[in-house]
Formats: sequence, structure tokens, C-alpha cells
Amino acid sequence: MISSRVNSKLCSPKQVAQFGRVLAPYHQVQLSALGSSVRLRAVGGAHQVPCSYYPSPRHFSSTSVAQLRDFFPAKETAYIRQTPPAWPHHGYTEEEMVSVVPEHRPPNTVGDWLAWKLVRMCRWATDIATGIRPKQQVDKKNPTTATSAEQPLTEAQWLVRFIFLESIAGVPGMVAGMLRHLGSLRRLKRDNGWIETLLEESYNERMHLLTFMKMSEPGWFMKTMIMGAQGVFFNALFVSYLISPKITHRFVGYLEEEAVHTYTRCIREIEQGDLPKWSAPNFRIPELAVGYWHMPEGKRTMKDLILYIRADEAVHRSVNHTLSNLNQNEDPNPFVSDYKADADGHMHRVNPHLKPTGYERSEVIG
Amino acid sequence: MISSRVNSKLCSPKQVAQFGRVLAPYHQVQLSALGSSVRLRAVGGAHQVPCSYYPSPRHFSSTSVAQLRDFFPAKETAYIRQTPPAWPHHGYTEEEMVSVVPEHRPPNTVGDWLAWKLVRMCRWATDIATGIRPKQQVDKKNPTTATSAEQPLTEAQWLVRFIFLESIAGVPGMVAGMLRHLGSLRRLKRDNGWIETLLEESYNERMHLLTFMKMSEPGWFMKTMIMGAQGVFFNALFVSYLISPKITHRFVGYLEEEAVHTYTRCIREIEQGDLPKWSAPNFRIPELAVGYWHMPEGKRTMKDLILYIRADEAVHRSVNHTLSNLNQNEDPNPFVSDYKADADGHMHRVNPHLKPTGYERSEVIG
Ligand SMILES: [Fe+2]
Ligand SMILES: [Fe+2]
Ligand SMILES: [Fe+2]
Ligand SMILES: [Fe+2]
Repeated sequence: MISSRVNSKLCSPKQVAQFGRVLAPYHQVQLSALGSSVRLRAVGGAHQVPCSYYPSPRHFSSTSVAQLRDFFPAKETAYIRQTPPAWPHHGYTEEEMVSVVPEHRPPNTVGDWLAWKLVRMCRWATDIATGIRPKQQVDKKNPTTATSAEQPLTEAQWLVRFIFLESIAGVPGMVAGMLRHLGSLRRLKRDNGWIETLLEESYNERMHLLTFMKMSEPGWFMKTMIMGAQGVFFNALFVSYLISPKITHRFVGYLEEEAVHTYTRCIREIEQGDLPKWSAPNFRIPELAVGYWHMPEGKRTMKDLILYIRADEAVHRSVNHTLSNLNQNEDPNPFVSDYKADADGHMHRVNPHLKPTGYERSEVIG
Repeated sequence: MISSRVNSKLCSPKQVAQFGRVLAPYHQVQLSALGSSVRLRAVGGAHQVPCSYYPSPRHFSSTSVAQLRDFFPAKETAYIRQTPPAWPHHGYTEEEMVSVVPEHRPPNTVGDWLAWKLVRMCRWATDIATGIRPKQQVDKKNPTTATSAEQPLTEAQWLVRFIFLESIAGVPGMVAGMLRHLGSLRRLKRDNGWIETLLEESYNERMHLLTFMKMSEPGWFMKTMIMGAQGVFFNALFVSYLISPKITHRFVGYLEEEAVHTYTRCIREIEQGDLPKWSAPNFRIPELAVGYWHMPEGKRTMKDLILYIRADEAVHRSVNHTLSNLNQNEDPNPFVSDYKADADGHMHRVNPHLKPTGYERSEVIG
């Protein structure tokens, strides 16, 4: 895959023309000047390079319009033929993806309530940091399930939000997996299969991030925010997972509720025609995403991509709510272990798609 | 798999007899009193329970003889049918395992030298902490390659050493994998395939530990040491990997040289008949190990097991020396990526078994 690095702010018209010539043998490149920014979209050819262009909305972040494009420098990928995914994606049925809906697990314990309030605070801070205007907010009385707002977000706003959220979303699974790994080594105890699911979750979130990075690059303000947020978030999760893994998994469960909510709203806005750039016939999603999710031909629109990502978030939601319900030291991970038969000879099976708010302990540990 | 928890110090003869009766339907249990300790070995039956017994040597650690046995309480595993390994082992050929020899990469840079001296210090401290007597030391002039000593270690000494070393060995891969994961999220950059190899290494080390835990349980002194050592080691590696991943990978490369050395000496002592308990015809290695390494029937002695583990260490040695030679931010992981063909149409291939001291950068990055 050939990637490109063009910053329109620094490119003279001559350089842009040159770039067009370099790519010409491989791609059909459309170049046109639009004020100080450059419209660049390459489609077709053996290697498709989706360099996306977004018009300038008023937004809080410093992300300049023209910076929202493929971010991967060419040299990094030039000599690699292929690196297969560390955790191959297991895929979803159409039914599993379409049936995902925003759901909310009512807090039962003080720990649940604390986790929920913390997530609400994080959501509020994110809305401010990513420049969501009051008219763009959803119904505040049903913040986790309502998905309509007076005014839609723009494509650029969505991408900034996705990138910020996904750069954070990859942290908890890694922290939890690492701490359980260290605990197993230190206490000389088996782990019961939790680590792999937690690490896989963090890898999956990183793939979400890299997919969106293939479409855009945030500005320096958002980049600084991402670094700062990781610093705070990593340390907070590290300490909180040592103190109470139960509450921490609940917290992540609630975060994932927000993620499902966010992507559901985005799908709704695509369906309503509010995000025309992503519905344009020549808009291409990154090859990386097509390969990772094994997206079938004819099902590779931006909406299809978000359907896959939302299904991932729904799995994380169910998994983390379930893990929070279990005994952290003794119980096996029901998502990777086969169980002994019940008295009636039935095998325990768990399917995260069936339990958006998680399995209760009594349902999976017989 | 049925596991057992019997502490001979706490068991009355009546309890021991009762334990024999409970297991009787499943196992052929041999019980006999020997002074204050109990000889317990269960063989045959559908579920083999290798409860090992070790005589009382004089040793530094507080590990009491009778505590050296299967450590996993029954209830943890009672309701799990099976959890497949997170990273299935890819296996080795006989040739690959037998051809491993202790090797040493001469330090080239100041960083290399620093890493090597640190490892030598760690080795010295470990020898003291695990109670290796002067006569049991190998030739000090060739500490990383000489494998003969005046006096062999006992089985119990070996196990204490293995458990201590493996509980430490699982840390660096996890720290490095986690920091690269966080770096990828924070810098919005792809990782180039390093993370999975690093995490797999740490999982593999944890499987080494759990295998030895299935044979024995260290005493409170060693347990305290393990906790303390992890605290120091984790923090030191965390900081050192942030400062210089290059030197840290070199350090791990040198640690793995020591590991290969340790297991080579152990194999030699088994071959010389110095460790009769492990050569006894009714000695059984844990089922966990047979499953994880896919050990073929007739090739499941303690020596076979150590051959597999030593081959793992040889892979870590080559991988970490190689990673240390690469550009940490730009270069792909040559152990998981396929490469573009050379000018002469030849594909780059890397095989850790061929390069005990690691590949130079020019050999893998064309
Ligand atoms: Fe995500
Ligand atoms: Fe998620
Ligand atoms: Fe090891
Ligand atoms: Fe190792």
C-alpha cells in the first residue's frame, strides 16, 4: 500500500502538481485549489489511497481542515509486504451488527454508581474539549440512549471525536491485562483466561484508532490533549485497577455504553444524509479496515465501517459489565473457556451480543 | 484435570489416608510416610496428577520439602473444562531444540556494555538469593558459556531457581509491549508489529512459570522475594524502556543468554544422572506442559520439557538482540512481517534459531 504525506499548508502549487504526477501512474488523482487549502482525493487503481478532504467548520480544536487526511508517511510502509493482525478479527453477522442498540445498565451498588458518575463527567469534559455546541447535544434527560440532536456534527467533528476517544479506549484493556499478568507472576497463580480478552480489547481499540488515523490527522491542540489525557487516564486506571478491578470493569462497561451511543448517533446521521462526504460514491474507507474486518465487497461504505466498530464496542460493553460481575481472583473468563455440562447436560455458552448489560455471575459460573 | 492440595506438615496420617481414598477411584496413589514428610505420587488413570516429592536438601530458601508439589487448588479448575492457550505454541523440530547452545554476543557499544554488566549483577544476586554454594558455581572465567560445576544443584534448588527466574522473565515483554501500545495510541502512529511478539514472549514466560508451579510451591521466603523482585524489576524496566528501548532489549537479550545457559546446565545434569528424581520412570511432567508444547507421546520426560523451554529462551535471546539492533520507531518487526523481494527476487526471511546473537539491522531491513 502506498501512502502519502502532503501538508497543503506547506505545499506550493508546483509541489502539489508534482505529487499528482508521482501518483498518476497508480491513481486517478483529483487536485484543485480551494482558497489556501487543497482538495485531494485519489481513487481507483491497484492501490487505493483515500486522501479525504473536509471543509472548514467552526470548531474548538486547532485541527485545520486540510490536515484531515492520510497520516502515514510513505517510508514506514514501503518495504513491508504485510504484517497480519496480531489478533485476527472473528467477524460478525449482519444481524449482530444491525441489532446493536444503546443500552444502559442501571447502577446497583455504590461502586456502580461511582463508575457511572465518573463516565458522565468524562463525557461532559470530552464534549467541551472536542467543541460540541449546545445545539449538537442530545436530549440531556436520556443522555446514554437518545441519539437525535437539533444539529448534526460535521464529518471533521466526528473524526476528531473518534480519534480522541479511541486513543483513550485502548488504555484500560492494556492496563488490566498487564496488571493481571503481573499478578499471576507475582502471586504464582493462574489467570483463568482474562488477560487475552483484555489485551485483545486494547488491540481492537488501537485498530479503531489507526483506521480513523488513515482518514485524518488532528492538529497540535488535539495531539497535546491526547498526550495529556493518556497520562491522566493511564495513571488513574493503574491505581483504580489495583484498588478495585470490579469498579474499573464497570467503569469501562459504562464507557463502552457511551461508545455504542456515539457510533449509533453517527450511523443515524449518515442514514439521514447529514454527512454527505461519507455518503459520496467516490469516498473510500481505508484498506486497513477492509482487511482487518474482512469487509465483503459491496459492503465497504463508511456506514458499514461504523457498524463494525459499533459492534466491537457492544462486545466490550457486555464483556466488561460481565467481568465486573465476577469474582476477580477465582472465576474463569466465560468468553474464552468451555464449561462443564450442567446437570441436564447443557453446556454453558456466553455470547456478548445477547447481553448488552452483561451476564450476572450466576448465569455463567455454575 | 483434578488437582490436589495436601500439605504434609498439616496432614495427619488419617487425613492422608482419606486423601488416598478420595483419589482412589481415579488414580493409583502411592502413599508412604517418611519421617515427618509424606511421599505422594499419583500415576495412571484418566487424569494424571503429578504430585512430586523432593527430599530435604540444605538450602538457603525457606521452602520446605513437602511444600514442593502441585500448587493449584482444586476449586479453581473444577468447573472449567478447558481454556485454550492465548498464544498457541508454534512448536519446534527436534533439530531446533537439540542444537541450542549457550552463546554470548560481545558488547559493542557503551549501552551494550552497561546492559551486560547489569545482567551479570542480577545473576550474582540470584545465585546468592537462591542459595547456590561456591562448589555449585560454574567456571567464573566463562560464566555465560561454561556449564559444568564441581557439584550439581538438587531438583529442589533447580525448581526454586526456575520459579524465581521465570516470575521475573515475564515482566520485560509485558512492559515493552504495553509502552509501545501506549506510544502508538499517544503518538497516533502504527507500531510495526512489535507489540504482539513482546506480549507473546511474556505469555510464553508465564507458561514456563505455571509449568514449574505445577511441580512445586516455594516457601514464604521465596514468595516474598518474588514480590519484591517484581516491584523493583517492573519499575526499573518501565523507566529504562522509556529512556532507551535499545539498551533494554539488549539487557533482555543478555538475560536470555543466562536463561539458555541455566537450562543447558540443567539438561547436562539430567543427562549425567545427577537429578535422579526427574529421570525416574514414574515421574510425570504436568499435563499443562504436554498440552501447551504439543509434546509427542514418548517424548515427555523432564529433559524433553527443559529442551522445549530452552528453545523458547533461545528464541527470546535472538529476538531481543535483533530488536535492539533496529530503529525502534521506524523499523518493522522482522519476525512477523513478510518483506518485499530483493532486487534478485529473494524474500527476506528471519529465523531466530539461526542467529543466537541476533540479526544485524542491515540483514533484515533492506
Ligand atoms: Fe473503539
Ligand atoms: Fe470500546
Ligand atoms: Fe522462561
Ligand atoms: Fe526467556
